[in-house]
Amino acid sequence: MPHLSYEYSANLDPVIDHNALCVALHSAALETGLFELGGVRVRSHKCKFYAVADLLPQNGFVHLTISVGAGRPADAKKSAGDHIWAALVDFLGSQFETPHFALSMEIREIDPDFSWKQNAIHPRIHAQKT
Amino acid sequence: MPHLSYEYSANLDPVIDHNALCVALHSAALETGLFELGGVRVRSHKCKFYAVADLLPQNGFVHLTISVGAGRPADAKKSAGDHIWAALVDFLGSQFETPHFALSMEIREIDPDFSWKQNAIHPRIHAQKT
Amino acid sequence: MPHLSYEYSANLDPVIDHNALCVALHSAALETGLFELGGVRVRSHKCKFYAVADLLPQNGFVHLTISVGAGRPADAKKSAGDHIWAALVDFLGSQFETPHFALSMEIREIDPDFSWKQNAIHPRIHAQKT
Repeated sequence: MPHLSYEYSANLDPVIDHNALCVALHSAALETGLFELGGVRVRSHKCKFYAVADLLPQNGFVHLTISVGAGRPADAKKSAGDHIWAALVDFLGSQFETPHFALSMEIREIDPDFSWKQNAIHPRIHAQKT
Repeated sequence: MPHLSYEYSANLDPVIDHNALCVALHSAALETGLFELGGVRVRSHKCKFYAVADLLPQNGFVHLTISVGAGRPADAKKSAGDHIWAALVDFLGSQFETPHFALSMEIREIDPDFSWKQNAIHPRIHAQKT
Repeated sequence: MPHLSYEYSANLDPVIDHNALCVALHSAALETGLFELGGVRVRSHKCKFYAVADLLPQNGFVHLTISVGAGRPADAKKSAGDHIWAALVDFLGSQFETPHFALSMEIREIDPDFSWKQNAIHPRIHAQKT
């Protein structure tokens, strides 16, 4: 954990550097202090076909879903979300200069009883720190 | 809100017009009266690799996930779902003529306390109305 | 049901046979005895852009989400999950030989009251059995 996965309309490809956005979200997730470096996984999903709002061809969207293990206090999740959201708005701010952009984000929880994981990155990073 | 996001097996590409399906779902979502024009975001995700039912190469699927803010009454969600489902079945009805198609849909909720949004489309649409 | 949908970082494409992985997950899902053949839908989503852990270019991930109808006993879901997870680890085991791979899986539930489905495959399979 955490998983940060965003969908976006393909018409935004020319104006968003997705490598840079993934790294910006990665940094913001770490800055919250809530997550371990080895567990951060950001990714994007391009949507070639879409229908947004009043269907103008310029209309575009980004929607980020953050999945975290259940059990953290609500206020910690809320302030972590606020921080990641601020980074998202900052990165995509110029899109709001046109009246065609919709940005959204949600945090959902994964039930630890129904979560499985194996991570070969954690041990390497832990070894580097010692 | 709402978000309507569907996955489909790539073998359906030759028989589904995804632009038209996105627009049909968009219309159906608006017809429910439950959602604002500026917030409707429909999109599709093509799955190049898949394994469906008894693995015949003709087997295909569409699965639509509708994400809405929590808090609406269950019966309003249910009848909105029924309406969107009817549009989905109507659009894809010819696929059921072959015994190789599986269609499904779910509504899930987004916790308003863990939802963030900024939408530059709403003000434009509201201004047009006045 | 069930839906098995996995996301993966695009750098794993040269080392994972996704058709074979989809079939392996399909087999594992059936072996649990919890699901009907006609309802199993496995698929994958490639993520071209991503940012994983300490951002080494070799870092990669696979995350599998299993969606099942709510109502099954927790222990049945848990042991079904254990079985599918074992198949996933077995298939991807060689990735753990490098310290760059993170694998994860979750089971989430779909509320039967907000689930719609129509399946033309079930009747065909049932007819074959009689």
